[in-house]
Amino acid sequence: MATPPFPLVLSFLILLSLSSSANSYPPRSSKHSPRFLGKFSHLHQPTDQKYETRYFEQRLDHFSFADLPSFRQKYLINTQHWLGPSRLGPILFYCGNEGNIEWFAANTGFVWEIAPRFGAMIIFPEHRYYGESMPYGSREIAYKNASTLSYLTAEQALADYAVFITELKRNLSAQACPVVLFGGSYGGMLAAWMRLKYPHIAIGALASSAPVLQFEDIVPPETYYDIVSNDFRRESISCFNTIKESWDIIASKGEENDGLNQLTKAFHFCRKLDSSEDLSDWLDSAYSYLAMADYPYPADFLMPLPGNPIKELCRRIDSCPDGTSTLQRVYEGVNVYYNYTGTVDCFNLDDDPHGMIGWDWQACTEMVMPFASSKNTSMFPEFEYNYADDEERCLKDYNVKPRPTWISTEFGGHDFKNVLKKFGSNIIFSNGLLDPWSGGSVLEDVSETIVALVTEKGAHHLDLRAATDEDPDWLVDQRESEVKLIKKWLQEYYDNKRATFTA
Amino acid sequence: MATPPFPLVLSFLILLSLSSSANSYPPRSSKHSPRFLGKFSHLHQPTDQKYETRYFEQRLDHFSFADLPSFRQKYLINTQHWLGPSRLGPILFYCGNEGNIEWFAANTGFVWEIAPRFGAMIIFPEHRYYGESMPYGSREIAYKNASTLSYLTAEQALADYAVFITELKRNLSAQACPVVLFGGSYGGMLAAWMRLKYPHIAIGALASSAPVLQFEDIVPPETYYDIVSNDFRRESISCFNTIKESWDIIASKGEENDGLNQLTKAFHFCRKLDSSEDLSDWLDSAYSYLAMADYPYPADFLMPLPGNPIKELCRRIDSCPDGTSTLQRVYEGVNVYYNYTGTVDCFNLDDDPHGMIGWDWQACTEMVMPFASSKNTSMFPEFEYNYADDEERCLKDYNVKPRPTWISTEFGGHDFKNVLKKFGSNIIFSNGLLDPWSGGSVLEDVSETIVALVTEKGAHHLDLRAATDEDPDWLVDQRESEVKLIKKWLQEYYDNKRATFTA
Repeated sequence: MATPPFPLVLSFLILLSLSSSANSYPPRSSKHSPRFLGKFSHLHQPTDQKYETRYFEQRLDHFSFADLPSFRQKYLINTQHWLGPSRLGPILFYCGNEGNIEWFAANTGFVWEIAPRFGAMIIFPEHRYYGESMPYGSREIAYKNASTLSYLTAEQALADYAVFITELKRNLSAQACPVVLFGGSYGGMLAAWMRLKYPHIAIGALASSAPVLQFEDIVPPETYYDIVSNDFRRESISCFNTIKESWDIIASKGEENDGLNQLTKAFHFCRKLDSSEDLSDWLDSAYSYLAMADYPYPADFLMPLPGNPIKELCRRIDSCPDGTSTLQRVYEGVNVYYNYTGTVDCFNLDDDPHGMIGWDWQACTEMVMPFASSKNTSMFPEFEYNYADDEERCLKDYNVKPRPTWISTEFGGHDFKNVLKKFGSNIIFSNGLLDPWSGGSVLEDVSETIVALVTEKGAHHLDLRAATDEDPDWLVDQRESEVKLIKKWLQEYYDNKRATFTA
Repeated sequence: MATPPFPLVLSFLILLSLSSSANSYPPRSSKHSPRFLGKFSHLHQPTDQKYETRYFEQRLDHFSFADLPSFRQKYLINTQHWLGPSRLGPILFYCGNEGNIEWFAANTGFVWEIAPRFGAMIIFPEHRYYGESMPYGSREIAYKNASTLSYLTAEQALADYAVFITELKRNLSAQACPVVLFGGSYGGMLAAWMRLKYPHIAIGALASSAPVLQFEDIVPPETYYDIVSNDFRRESISCFNTIKESWDIIASKGEENDGLNQLTKAFHFCRKLDSSEDLSDWLDSAYSYLAMADYPYPADFLMPLPGNPIKELCRRIDSCPDGTSTLQRVYEGVNVYYNYTGTVDCFNLDDDPHGMIGWDWQACTEMVMPFASSKNTSMFPEFEYNYADDEERCLKDYNVKPRPTWISTEFGGHDFKNVLKKFGSNIIFSNGLLDPWSGGSVLEDVSETIVALVTEKGAHHLDLRAATDEDPDWLVDQRESEVKLIKKWLQEYYDNKRATFTA
């Protein structure tokens, strides 16, 4: 299941000759960590996004004085609409997450669209260890081993952003200009945490689809796969059942003589499958990503997809002629994800165009998210969460021991509402309930100013995407609510500034 | 002036044979960094403080996954009055600062006195790199060079506390028990920052004499020495003038043939002074420490001192017979600090009984506090703040480059009130205006729940000391206000818990 460090482990081992057993692929029971982003997603740069690409010299370890080499952090900047320092023009700051920053810029049209309304500068900084923002001068060295990777943590990334904004503002004499944070998915977690940890740096944060509670026992581990499953069930019970049946069929086929050849052929892979589990993982990824990207209109957030892609997948599964095999149905369905344009001749397992393999390291260190699949409510094979398996795998793959309680220790999560209801302010947690990550996010208002915006039919940070003609009213309304709240934060900031000036 | 890394540099060089020029003593203009604690202070363990001493295995770098040795963090614990987990007994947690933890326990009687009223557990954890809490197994190795010292930072110390509390509570099944933070001086800074950064760990903080604003340009650099000077002037103008005159006399005496011998004799040093500046620094320290410890009753916080020790010092200076030289007057005066008990035969420059030399490293890395002395308002020799000198000295002494803007980037400070007035809650900044550090602290309410308690006649975290029969009413009242606020935090916490339980 899921999309575990398989491609990473391979390239890792080959490139860097780490010692690890040949059988380094984690056992089935131990690798249930969905990623946020699709391995196969690609970049369509919107033509109306103009920016300069710049670099900032960044410290590798902010929290020690160890003598380490600095690295160049990439950022995209647009000042076209900025009101400038004298008019306290705001700075809209996207907290880059686990991939090339251009990809996030391209998929966060909302920020670009509202910037003119606020007279705002736009900044998209890249997350360390992703894209071009590589410590030690190259991806090869940065990803060489646990020692070189050891500074790939969320706290270091937040400190990068804090230092970078502070310096940028100083250079522009813009110290008094308010900063508003944005982020989706892991970027949304960073945005929320940044507002909480650095209130002096940013006045508020829009944290879209940010599963800040997907740790330890804060939410049940079944939540994620239950939501994916519900997204399918609500479209069609028979579709849900077909998928639910398929796993055992795939597994027994894999056991047969020539079974892997048959599966390879049936699913049109370019190279022969090594195991039936690879196929299951490939399908699992597709279903999960479809749940994330279950948008009401065609989009290419991860892959080029139709509107309501799960409805389309289920339509294809259900509309096969009577007598069509379960595997054939599943194949027809999954083409909605992997081959909606119909241009793919055969499929590969191991693309990673957006450089997101760093996430596997993060999942093996800090981002220890428990997942499970329930026999009764999930369409996926049943499995329980077992931390010991995670630990074993991470020790084997990376020679690193995860710290499963660290994120909640550093950022909180337990008793979230009570802790924050009289602490903190100006955070929007926006979520669409179709998004499987919504179950690990904040779905209720915490206080008057830490609020939840929940849409029943939204998916993974849909609100951050550019507006389209096909946007349903509820989406238009959601974005307007967000703009209104941001306006309020800014107004309050300006009022305070004025009071201070005249005092 | 001030108490710069002189003893440190010496012992450092001798013990650890670091390469550094023989002339490693910083030039006069570059070393104006008062410390919080007296080099010569000593420990009187109160007989009514009972605790167990324990150790906790702590991670050296919380913010990376580098493979580093763990270390044993010492803590003192008392559970005698604790109501236990089932009754949600609170945990009073003192954020240990730059010295042996026993010393802070001994000088923080307030926490011990209020614990029974709250049915609270008491915990005093030691700050990393101080006392027995030494990384790398020994002080010698921990303090060997910039590399081994590099994890001596405030953020790491806060993370130590966060991890430690979380684990301790888990072990005691006390996850739901509220934690209240205490700290004085640098410990107060840690307490305030901890509440801001880890609201999920602690419900509130009493930050006594915590100069969280003594960074960059947030307060004028003259503030500290102006307050010391005012403490003397308000007792006696002639005393203030005698001290103000003395510096030039000492300096010219130092230039004379046999001048250093004469100074050594006049001030009763055991060994010959190396320079007149050593004497000036020794006097400067005494005046600064007396300002911090200008308590209304006899105390041995730093040294055994009479009540209102500055008044006594000035009485001695002023009551010398006509014709007494300025130097002789100053000598008579300073005996109030260094030899109030009259038992010292001769003085040494380089004692450091509480292991506080780590502060010099901290001052050379994160804790870059600008100090200056104004010609008009200060009784100390005039000097301006010059960061370049600090940097040069730190590079020479420690081979480390300070990060002068880091603390404000990490913890804030600029525009403090506006930033926090709608963010954060439950912090008391208590200050006595005689304390020179009060000028870098928070002297005005930030919000309804981030409040300033200011006493005109208080000195350095007087409120944290044990009650005495001689406590003036204003001090009794101050402590009662603190207890009332802490009660309110706890009550609110319990109310929330109850609401959650019944919901």
